[in-house]
Amino acid sequence: MTIKLYELAGAEDDRRFSPYCWRIRFALEHKQLDFEPVACRFTDKDAIAFSGQDKVPVLVDGDNVVSDSWAIACYLEQGYPDRPSLFGGPAGQALSRFYVDWTDTVLHGTLIRLLASDIHAHLHEKDKGYFRESREQRFRATLEEFCSNQTQTLQELKRILTPLRRSLQSQPYLGGDAPLFADYTVMGAFMWARSVSRVPLLEPDDPVALWRSRLLGRLGEGAARLRAYG
Amino acid sequence: MTIKLYELAGAEDDRRFSPYCWRIRFALEHKQLDFEPVACRFTDKDAIAFSGQDKVPVLVDGDNVVSDSWAIACYLEQGYPDRPSLFGGPAGQALSRFYVDWTDTVLHGTLIRLLASDIHAHLHEKDKGYFRESREQRFRATLEEFCSNQTQTLQELKRILTPLRRSLQSQPYLGGDAPLFADYTVMGAFMWARSVSRVPLLEPDDPVALWRSRLLGRLGEGAARLRAYG
Repeated sequence: MTIKLYELAGAEDDRRFSPYCWRIRFALEHKQLDFEPVACRFTDKDAIAFSGQDKVPVLVDGDNVVSDSWAIACYLEQGYPDRPSLFGGPAGQALSRFYVDWTDTVLHGTLIRLLASDIHAHLHEKDKGYFRESREQRFRATLEEFCSNQTQTLQELKRILTPLRRSLQSQPYLGGDAPLFADYTVMGAFMWARSVSRVPLLEPDDPVALWRSRLLGRLGEGAARLRAYG
Repeated sequence: MTIKLYELAGAEDDRRFSPYCWRIRFALEHKQLDFEPVACRFTDKDAIAFSGQDKVPVLVDGDNVVSDSWAIACYLEQGYPDRPSLFGGPAGQALSRFYVDWTDTVLHGTLIRLLASDIHAHLHEKDKGYFRESREQRFRATLEEFCSNQTQTLQELKRILTPLRRSLQSQPYLGGDAPLFADYTVMGAFMWARSVSRVPLLEPDDPVALWRSRLLGRLGEGAARLRAYG
């Protein structure tokens, strides 16, 4: 039975923008597992209610239902040990946590100040009210105000990428000669950006941009055909 | 022949404060390798000239002379494969790079604003002029000016530790159930702080403080006896 991946979609079914869902797309391709992607919207809570929670990604693999991108990655690693490893062993798995936590807080925390209003513009009509209300409450600002300092946020982005840039100067991927889940975790944030925003985030010769290109070049056909800018 | 580790020392021979040297102390203890620590000062360039460069740590193991803490860790891993691993395999080794780059830039970059003038106060007399001049040129401020916003820097420290704190909420060490070189890399920064400063950096219930205590508890007798505050 084919694995199903419930993913967040925008106005169009083929605009997949959730950074957490992208981690799992990359992970499934890494594991060379076929899967059927299912488009969901923020307000489609009913469609994933069977998972016992209300957030995508949700992975359905036979009788197994797994939510939360880290839990899904660990599930895939354990359930498909003969496929290419996402972590390269228990130490690699433990060491991948900081990449998740750094991406979730530092990288997403900066990018959202560039993307929030673009995300809103690309949402399905039925999601727009929910997104604006919940995010404006969280940000204590309108989406437009929150995203108004683009120049400053781009400088901040350049600054926070300093350690990542250094690492990618010394090796092609965070995982070494080939990408691992740590790469996909960070890359999810850049996929989020390019699915909704035309703003160039990186100088073309930035080692982070070169790494991003290498990862884009590895995307399977299905993923490469999804809507994106740049 | 016993391994020699050339380390930076302060006014007293037993005040070892270099975060890079601490990484290697922890690494040697992890590998259960005996070593003879040799105290050096900033201005003792002649003492390590044999290494072909002018920075500690320098490790001498028989005919092998290795400098740079990352290169030393990789040397120990390769040269002593039967001892406990510092990386847990090639993936863990690659994934450890970001910990090094994050510590060198983000964590050290914040801590130096707390520590620079304390370091100066704890230096050997012969190092004080060199340190003040080189650092004041780098910081474009006097050491005292550079370290004058302690309250703000402590808040900044709390903020930048967010991803580390999250990771250490989900596992006892960055390396998982036991520490790896990634732990020692980050811990080196806290050893640097406690060797020269009385300022409490962390709330006692901070997961980062609990992790720091666990690592302190694993220090060998020789290291635990070195001068430090707190």
